[in-house]
Amino acid sequence: MSGIFITFEGGDGAGKSTQAELLGSWLEGRGHEVVRTREPGGTRLGVEIRSLLLHGSRGGAKDPGANDLGADDPGADDPGGDGFGEVDPRAEALLYAADRAQHVAKVVRPALERGAVVVQDRYIDSSLAYQGAGRVLDVGEVRRISEWAAGGLWPHLTVLLDLEPKAAAERRAARGGSADRLESEAAEFHEAVRRGFRALADADPDRFLVLDASGTVEELHAAILARVVSLTAR
Amino acid sequence: MSGIFITFEGGDGAGKSTQAELLGSWLEGRGHEVVRTREPGGTRLGVEIRSLLLHGSRGGAKDPGANDLGADDPGADDPGGDGFGEVDPRAEALLYAADRAQHVAKVVRPALERGAVVVQDRYIDSSLAYQGAGRVLDVGEVRRISEWAAGGLWPHLTVLLDLEPKAAAERRAARGGSADRLESEAAEFHEAVRRGFRALADADPDRFLVLDASGTVEELHAAILARVVSLTAR
Repeated sequence: MSGIFITFEGGDGAGKSTQAELLGSWLEGRGHEVVRTREPGGTRLGVEIRSLLLHGSRGGAKDPGANDLGADDPGADDPGGDGFGEVDPRAEALLYAADRAQHVAKVVRPALERGAVVVQDRYIDSSLAYQGAGRVLDVGEVRRISEWAAGGLWPHLTVLLDLEPKAAAERRAARGGSADRLESEAAEFHEAVRRGFRALADADPDRFLVLDASGTVEELHAAILARVVSLTAR
Repeated sequence: MSGIFITFEGGDGAGKSTQAELLGSWLEGRGHEVVRTREPGGTRLGVEIRSLLLHGSRGGAKDPGANDLGADDPGADDPGGDGFGEVDPRAEALLYAADRAQHVAKVVRPALERGAVVVQDRYIDSSLAYQGAGRVLDVGEVRRISEWAAGGLWPHLTVLLDLEPKAAAERRAARGGSADRLESEAAEFHEAVRRGFRALADADPDRFLVLDASGTVEELHAAILARVVSLTAR
């Protein structure tokens, strides 16, 4: 595969979408084909899976992104009362893995095979950090299933936008999300997610670029480019 | 757990539903609480997952039951043209595993914990026999994921209704299913599924009761009762 696979990780509000968009535009300006995508929900099947996860009430530690309001805290009730009751944590993890399998097979791999740069919002690291924070499932098993789903495909570069959960919550509120009543209860969970991401980065320093996301948009973009240049110059 | 978990396995047309129903009625007559259930689709979430699998076109070796016409042959096109394109084989296997996780956690385990007898149409053995016949995925991995999904729960007794695929096809046709144009192409696949089930039974003779499904309904029922009596007498 001749393409380049770059993922963005971090909590909601850390600036992943902004930086992914800036990087994508820069790469396009340099003549690369860029595929911007996300998990969960990067395929038609994935959109349906995401909808299933939204309709169930919350079991264990959800992967992020299943709730558009950003309330990825465990334990909330089924809001509409028309869900499936609680989705079992293993069922939930397997649904995320199914989304990943479809996405990698139908979107990411074909793009890499034709030489594109894939710029993706969240990947396996998110599953590991969020499931680890939830402490319901064995993270080693979640990793094994995720890797199997992905056919062993890991990114060339993972940009971790590291931000204190309190600052991330303020950013989410500033961009119009309502202050969630669970925000304070969730602080400990978000801190555990952050620790999870940092531990993953420590264990795989060649793949990760860890940035302090409290920097300005321009500072972060420049730091990302400095690393990406060396990848695209291969 | 004080209950008893009994599964029925075999190809479509082998008589699983008939024997499960007879066994369930007999057990109820003896005063047992009986939970009759199935995979896939034994929960509300599972029904939705099953619907997702029906809307996608066929990738690898589908688990059985995703198509009500009994045409569980690999390679058919998306019949309605409104599906997701081909569902990746790993995504498909993970969706079946998600169905299983939800079903075991929400239906089977609670029933066993309150002392009921669970009489179930298809379980892990079906996943292994059908995926093995499809030869797309590593069956060892499918087993590992299925076991994880099920939290390691295996049946006390698995009744394998073993039938030559040609006889099974005739039975399906006799009960009103149209003769599928893929029926002949599928013969080899169904033979491989049958071999898969028999190999599973050979490897675990204490759990399996293998019956020649060409016998009469009454003969089969009697043979099943003979084995079940020893289980319920515990």
